[in-house]
Amino acid sequence: MSVMDSRARSVTDVWSMDRAEPIRTGDDYVASLRGRGLRVRYMGEWISEPVDHPVVRPSVNAVARTYDLAVEKPELATVHSELVGRRVNRFLHVATSAEDLVDQNKMQRELGRQTGTCFQRCVGMDAFNALWSVTYECDRDRGTTYHQRLRDFLRYVQEKNLVVGGAMTDPKGDRSKAPADQHDPDLYVRVVQRREDGVVLRGAKAHQTGCLNSHWLVVMPTMRMRPEDRDYAIVAAIPVDHPGITYLYGRQASDSRAAEGVDQGNATYGGQEAMVLLDDVFVPWESVFLDGEVEWTAPLVERFTGFHRRSYVCKTGLGDVLVGAAAQLAEYHGTDRASHVKDKIVEMTHLNETIYGAGIAASHEARPTAAGNYQPDDVLANVCKHNVTRFPYEIARLAQDIAGGLVATMPSEQELDDEEVGPLLRKYLATSPDVDPADRMRLLRLVENLTMGRNAVGYLTESLHGAGSPQAQRVQIARGTDAEALKAHARRLAGVDEPAGD
Amino acid sequence: MSVMDSRARSVTDVWSMDRAEPIRTGDDYVASLRGRGLRVRYMGEWISEPVDHPVVRPSVNAVARTYDLAVEKPELATVHSELVGRRVNRFLHVATSAEDLVDQNKMQRELGRQTGTCFQRCVGMDAFNALWSVTYECDRDRGTTYHQRLRDFLRYVQEKNLVVGGAMTDPKGDRSKAPADQHDPDLYVRVVQRREDGVVLRGAKAHQTGCLNSHWLVVMPTMRMRPEDRDYAIVAAIPVDHPGITYLYGRQASDSRAAEGVDQGNATYGGQEAMVLLDDVFVPWESVFLDGEVEWTAPLVERFTGFHRRSYVCKTGLGDVLVGAAAQLAEYHGTDRASHVKDKIVEMTHLNETIYGAGIAASHEARPTAAGNYQPDDVLANVCKHNVTRFPYEIARLAQDIAGGLVATMPSEQELDDEEVGPLLRKYLATSPDVDPADRMRLLRLVENLTMGRNAVGYLTESLHGAGSPQAQRVQIARGTDAEALKAHARRLAGVDEPAGD
Amino acid sequence: MSVMDSRARSVTDVWSMDRAEPIRTGDDYVASLRGRGLRVRYMGEWISEPVDHPVVRPSVNAVARTYDLAVEKPELATVHSELVGRRVNRFLHVATSAEDLVDQNKMQRELGRQTGTCFQRCVGMDAFNALWSVTYECDRDRGTTYHQRLRDFLRYVQEKNLVVGGAMTDPKGDRSKAPADQHDPDLYVRVVQRREDGVVLRGAKAHQTGCLNSHWLVVMPTMRMRPEDRDYAIVAAIPVDHPGITYLYGRQASDSRAAEGVDQGNATYGGQEAMVLLDDVFVPWESVFLDGEVEWTAPLVERFTGFHRRSYVCKTGLGDVLVGAAAQLAEYHGTDRASHVKDKIVEMTHLNETIYGAGIAASHEARPTAAGNYQPDDVLANVCKHNVTRFPYEIARLAQDIAGGLVATMPSEQELDDEEVGPLLRKYLATSPDVDPADRMRLLRLVENLTMGRNAVGYLTESLHGAGSPQAQRVQIARGTDAEALKAHARRLAGVDEPAGD
Amino acid sequence: MSVMDSRARSVTDVWSMDRAEPIRTGDDYVASLRGRGLRVRYMGEWISEPVDHPVVRPSVNAVARTYDLAVEKPELATVHSELVGRRVNRFLHVATSAEDLVDQNKMQRELGRQTGTCFQRCVGMDAFNALWSVTYECDRDRGTTYHQRLRDFLRYVQEKNLVVGGAMTDPKGDRSKAPADQHDPDLYVRVVQRREDGVVLRGAKAHQTGCLNSHWLVVMPTMRMRPEDRDYAIVAAIPVDHPGITYLYGRQASDSRAAEGVDQGNATYGGQEAMVLLDDVFVPWESVFLDGEVEWTAPLVERFTGFHRRSYVCKTGLGDVLVGAAAQLAEYHGTDRASHVKDKIVEMTHLNETIYGAGIAASHEARPTAAGNYQPDDVLANVCKHNVTRFPYEIARLAQDIAGGLVATMPSEQELDDEEVGPLLRKYLATSPDVDPADRMRLLRLVENLTMGRNAVGYLTESLHGAGSPQAQRVQIARGTDAEALKAHARRLAGVDEPAGD
Repeated sequence: MSVMDSRARSVTDVWSMDRAEPIRTGDDYVASLRGRGLRVRYMGEWISEPVDHPVVRPSVNAVARTYDLAVEKPELATVHSELVGRRVNRFLHVATSAEDLVDQNKMQRELGRQTGTCFQRCVGMDAFNALWSVTYECDRDRGTTYHQRLRDFLRYVQEKNLVVGGAMTDPKGDRSKAPADQHDPDLYVRVVQRREDGVVLRGAKAHQTGCLNSHWLVVMPTMRMRPEDRDYAIVAAIPVDHPGITYLYGRQASDSRAAEGVDQGNATYGGQEAMVLLDDVFVPWESVFLDGEVEWTAPLVERFTGFHRRSYVCKTGLGDVLVGAAAQLAEYHGTDRASHVKDKIVEMTHLNETIYGAGIAASHEARPTAAGNYQPDDVLANVCKHNVTRFPYEIARLAQDIAGGLVATMPSEQELDDEEVGPLLRKYLATSPDVDPADRMRLLRLVENLTMGRNAVGYLTESLHGAGSPQAQRVQIARGTDAEALKAHARRLAGVDEPAGD
Repeated sequence: MSVMDSRARSVTDVWSMDRAEPIRTGDDYVASLRGRGLRVRYMGEWISEPVDHPVVRPSVNAVARTYDLAVEKPELATVHSELVGRRVNRFLHVATSAEDLVDQNKMQRELGRQTGTCFQRCVGMDAFNALWSVTYECDRDRGTTYHQRLRDFLRYVQEKNLVVGGAMTDPKGDRSKAPADQHDPDLYVRVVQRREDGVVLRGAKAHQTGCLNSHWLVVMPTMRMRPEDRDYAIVAAIPVDHPGITYLYGRQASDSRAAEGVDQGNATYGGQEAMVLLDDVFVPWESVFLDGEVEWTAPLVERFTGFHRRSYVCKTGLGDVLVGAAAQLAEYHGTDRASHVKDKIVEMTHLNETIYGAGIAASHEARPTAAGNYQPDDVLANVCKHNVTRFPYEIARLAQDIAGGLVATMPSEQELDDEEVGPLLRKYLATSPDVDPADRMRLLRLVENLTMGRNAVGYLTESLHGAGSPQAQRVQIARGTDAEALKAHARRLAGVDEPAGD
Repeated sequence: MSVMDSRARSVTDVWSMDRAEPIRTGDDYVASLRGRGLRVRYMGEWISEPVDHPVVRPSVNAVARTYDLAVEKPELATVHSELVGRRVNRFLHVATSAEDLVDQNKMQRELGRQTGTCFQRCVGMDAFNALWSVTYECDRDRGTTYHQRLRDFLRYVQEKNLVVGGAMTDPKGDRSKAPADQHDPDLYVRVVQRREDGVVLRGAKAHQTGCLNSHWLVVMPTMRMRPEDRDYAIVAAIPVDHPGITYLYGRQASDSRAAEGVDQGNATYGGQEAMVLLDDVFVPWESVFLDGEVEWTAPLVERFTGFHRRSYVCKTGLGDVLVGAAAQLAEYHGTDRASHVKDKIVEMTHLNETIYGAGIAASHEARPTAAGNYQPDDVLANVCKHNVTRFPYEIARLAQDIAGGLVATMPSEQELDDEEVGPLLRKYLATSPDVDPADRMRLLRLVENLTMGRNAVGYLTESLHGAGSPQAQRVQIARGTDAEALKAHARRLAGVDEPAGD
Repeated sequence: MSVMDSRARSVTDVWSMDRAEPIRTGDDYVASLRGRGLRVRYMGEWISEPVDHPVVRPSVNAVARTYDLAVEKPELATVHSELVGRRVNRFLHVATSAEDLVDQNKMQRELGRQTGTCFQRCVGMDAFNALWSVTYECDRDRGTTYHQRLRDFLRYVQEKNLVVGGAMTDPKGDRSKAPADQHDPDLYVRVVQRREDGVVLRGAKAHQTGCLNSHWLVVMPTMRMRPEDRDYAIVAAIPVDHPGITYLYGRQASDSRAAEGVDQGNATYGGQEAMVLLDDVFVPWESVFLDGEVEWTAPLVERFTGFHRRSYVCKTGLGDVLVGAAAQLAEYHGTDRASHVKDKIVEMTHLNETIYGAGIAASHEARPTAAGNYQPDDVLANVCKHNVTRFPYEIARLAQDIAGGLVATMPSEQELDDEEVGPLLRKYLATSPDVDPADRMRLLRLVENLTMGRNAVGYLTESLHGAGSPQAQRVQIARGTDAEALKAHARRLAGVDEPAGD
């Protein structure tokens, strides 16, 4: 079936396409991605099978690791689901206790350590965790039936053990204008047609983490909507291989090295972000979880970010890798006992654990919603993410400091294979007879990878903008502060008001 | 009884002196401090009754608040104790769950908010929480009976509802030398005599928070000891009114304003730190909890700081007061809607909550000891405290930024009472007709109090040095990092080692 | 003559009061301040002779040092003046070259080192340096005669070698409203009457550095004025002992220790800030340098801050003292070879020199005005000051880190005199036999003095707000950035525009 | 002539190869690089003509700009040379005044702005500026003739208008061991043979900025040498096309995009760093400027870094480009009036100008050497560079913050050419009808280029390690601090010592 033919498949076909056997291992998962006929562009060309594309594959491997971890460490990466009556992958679970949320964080850190990149499944998890209570309350207040639809959808993906991506960020056009006020109405995803059997969507979602590697995408509004933005207040699940979707694969720093197959630093794992174009995509009502209830857009975004900003604890796993790489290089270089090197490693650790602390605290301080699931503490979740917008940059700087200038000036590992030049390069990159210069080069490439290469996208820029740019957290921290209570404390101590309790 | 006569009282007298009725309220507590004949120096003179001394009293009030809070909010400030079979003040409890530890943090923050100062009871609490497992393990390994003695002591203080202070920091002399190597052997507290009925101690403890306001002090070694430091490896409980003790009360910034009774900022509450001189103080065996087992000094210090560095969450309560004061002043000044002012308040909150997050996480990630109590996560506790050595200084700077230069240049409130000058001062300090200039002045004094006045001692300098200076945390963070595991992660991703799981 | 009688003296009397002999030494200067009958309030009382008041005197000493330095190091602290044809104190000079401005900075740093406080003469110097070009250009454009009046005034103060203070900051009332829109029209200094022989002024100036220690005050508008603020656009020189002026002396942290005569840290030198109340003060035309030309208020403020924000290089002198104190204490404590201590001293120095660098660069990059004097580079001057609002706080924190907790908990030096307690305090504060514990105490008090005591007012809060609060510098940095040029560079390199030069 | 044949050319041939006509324009310069038969490796292959290699060419263009600037702005980029009696390119000049040094900084900033990358000529300039005084003093003390040789060499390169590279950094092997103690003696460049007519060198130099783009390299020792390191104390000029040299070209982040010809951000200009392998390279005595005088290695390194650390002012030119790019993108996005965006641009500018200030001050505070040239202030030069190791990372972070996540997730510009996808990409990247989405993409790529792409090598990692890693500056700042003088100031103010001047 050619790429363009796929357009002809009905959604029912897509749905029925689901394989009989649920996915279990990473290999099963990789197999599940094949043959979907996705319309994917990269560097000006259509990609025929993303799974086998050298630039895409590392991102597939990272998601596959989430499956294998569930097999290897089920206590960490699976959890009992009431919906299906058995343990499911933790990424498909709606957290029903603070401890569940803390355990998510621990799984996220472990996966960060194991992959050194973004493993792409948090957005989806955080999306349906937020939708769980929002649909519940919307149904309660408006008499809609979104919550039951969501339960059905979740039961299905849990049974099949699928990857669900969340798609929130619209292109946004002119930032100073609301959705309905843009010069092009499609700059935010919108309902262009409401039919008896469902809705038709048009628009785009930018920076979509792991979209190609998912089985379903849940599109959601990206911000608070006004009544006039009603057509933009849409939440819907769409199969990734829907024929109306085109994926424009994002370039990453040094991504061509994956195609070259050399000097990658981390050849196994990588992140993935693409722009998703929705060209009049039909979604049946059973997959629609909000449509026009604009008053629920702000709560949805706030609750989603309440989960997702705390999910950035994953970056402490990447931080662990950088700490490890720096410590290993210091040992190779004979600088591991220099006090300033030890001190910098402590600083890296301190910053990394500071992020972790706020994340764990946000999860631990979660409170139950009316729907019965648990919602993280909003201020602490935002504080966690806000530190993520700062500290990885400093950790990266310190890692480069310890690693040395070769991070940015090292000749290709290909030179090692040359009969004349290879031995010379080894000679001059040797630090002591006990250290293989090739190992040193690999570690240096890993630092490059995480600080200015392919996984710097995930470790730095995504840390800055994912789950909302820094200012979004500041707004939310301001909202979460009970300024009146604090002012009253100050006035009382200053003697302006009467003492408390009197 | 004159001050000097008190020397004649036997320890048995002291012990029997205990009042029949346990303390319940803050007023009971204040009464319990009277008439103890303490030998206290301040500004070159003996103080006859510290409770009534204007400089001392605010620190008494802060401790009294810990009693009243237990009456007002028993769920926050009391907890069931197995030792006595009923709820006791949380400051006297050995935590037997992670949740207990989290609840300590919440109580600490609330008291920080209510008092705007150090309420002085955490050291003691953290001391016996650490001793609980250390004495248990020492007994197990060495056949000693310290743990049972500690249980008896704790049961007693819980029944009487007393304040127990912890006394750790020795004067230390030349920092480059160990205790037994100092030019004067008394520069660390030591056993100068071992008698059949107990030990005799000599030395001093510096920076002793709330020592005058306690009923008992538990002296502990301040660092890892070597075999030759055996006489310095002593833990013992001593009644505060033991006749062999002299207290040299520390000066605090602007402390004379308490004596003047004006321009205090926070007239009700203050901290207290004194140098405690032990002049051959006899301690009966029943009050000795370690004596010479040098190998337990390092675990004791590490476990104590594991509790205590996380207790610095109290400073987020003071941070709350500064945020409130800044927000209130901005409102008075008409700057509350200026974007840079709002942004600074967000930054203050962000830093404050970052501290809180690491503290809560350290408590939540606590693990049970062999003795059954819970020990906080060491790295996170150190990370919490390490942020405390940095962020309050920045929060204070931002508070001064918002409050304006008057924080440091404002005339005395006494001018307000002058017939000629008072109206002029009001006229020129008026911001709008709705704001009483006197209220504005009080809030400005509160900011001065917390950033460069009496409570800056607790909010800034104590945040830096209490529970160990910054470098102590860095050493501990380094120790808590499993560098080998992190290096292995880095090597695996870089392709130096085989993939994990293979 | 009683304080109240002084009101009766005519301005001519004041003027004629000028002594025949110019001031030369610090002692001459101190003598010149006596017997002026100033109306000064401190702590609710009138002060009879400020020079002899223990709290005021250290601030007088600091100014006296500026005279003595001119005698001791004339190449540093004096400079040839065209106005009088001989060398004058540099603080009275209008800079006519970039090198002149650089030399001001060097003198400021030296005086900061010598006094460890604010020596109070920069505002005046910077005021008439700014007025020099503003009056020149105003005269040129408006046909006024301000410049000649200013020259006459300057010649006079140079001849007499007087101290001129600058008075800029108004109380400002509601910050969200302009001068003429306040609920009380006096919240900015204004002309209440224009007479044939001069103007009558009413209002107040807040935070007036060294006002009592000056001979003349030059009042200036504090911000850009609108046409309707015409009466607020006034610049005038007023003798400090004008009978219509009342001074409300500001309280400083720990100021009472000067009255107590103990535990001062720096007993010799201190800063001074007071609120100056102008109660219908008459100023003859010869002392008026701007009156109603509102369009010149913004240039005046900008040029003044262009000088004054770079004058904050003085704080690097105070930073030098803190670096020295920390280094000395580390040596006393035996920690001077600990790598983290050395590293912190480097960091203190680095931050201190970063401030210095921007200040020197601002002076060096000065450009000539139409009036012939030199105006510092505006962006660099603002950058210098903006770093001053940040780095001293961090330097202070590091100094406290190295100095240790005793900075905030040390008993009074008065204990040293007690027969019983003195020897014990010495015993326990001893670090090695080579160090006198009393010396250690003095250094610790100096650190307290600069970080949370009397001179913390000058080193920290004044660094924050003096010459404009942080946001004022940010506004000015934004104004000084040629964003269009930078955007063009970026577009050209990105390939949006044609290459430059083509 | 094949690459391998070039080995046969005698040094005299090389020298005589010099073209009759001096270089004048950038085009002349590019022509001068051709046909030199350099032995250059990149990605495992020999490069036949570097000038025409797509990855190399942008670095050639950057150097060419230094020639064209001299034509376009001779007052900025040329200066009168006493050696040849006419104006020469400023990069070939020995500075004989502080103003000369300040002017270097201004030229460096301008070139940074014009190229957005490292233009590669500062190392050489700073090398012979340092050698000027070192050879002079060595000759004076040791009776050598190095200074005259250096003068001759400089006259020659000024006459021919050549590019001279400086080569300092050795591979260093085990950092905890000195040159002569390494397991392989070649890990620092050394003299392997001393002949009647010159010396033979072996070893490597790492991270060699612009080495291929130079005509001559001056090798220098990288650190203080001990007597036993005598053979490593060698300074010599070598023609770049010496047949004994092999160049291993360093990989840069996203360097393959230059080969692809797309998505480069800055397609015109780039930096260049390579590892230079010296395989028994003969140097005649006339090109040797130090040989074995180990006591002059430390002064050489210190003086060189005194010049070179201040040369990092060039990065403020790159900072200007990032400020401009961020400001332009904010305008495109409609966020340019958001207060937090304006504030971030101010912060970027503030940090950038802080670097500039310290650099200008270091140059301005230069002092004459015995040889008559000017040496920058050492502490300020180190402070300048130390800020360069920090602030560009924060400026880069802020630029990414303002630019948005597309910096790291944007599809290739190649999509724009596709008939189907191109219009869709334009549609969804449109912000307002006035902005061409392709322009927006180009600016975003420029931000990527400078923050995680090819020129991040120069803007970030080289800023960290070039001219010495951060710790090297800290050591030098410590050395430059007169701690004894500062301690004396502190003691005097604290009352420990007598007042100064008494």
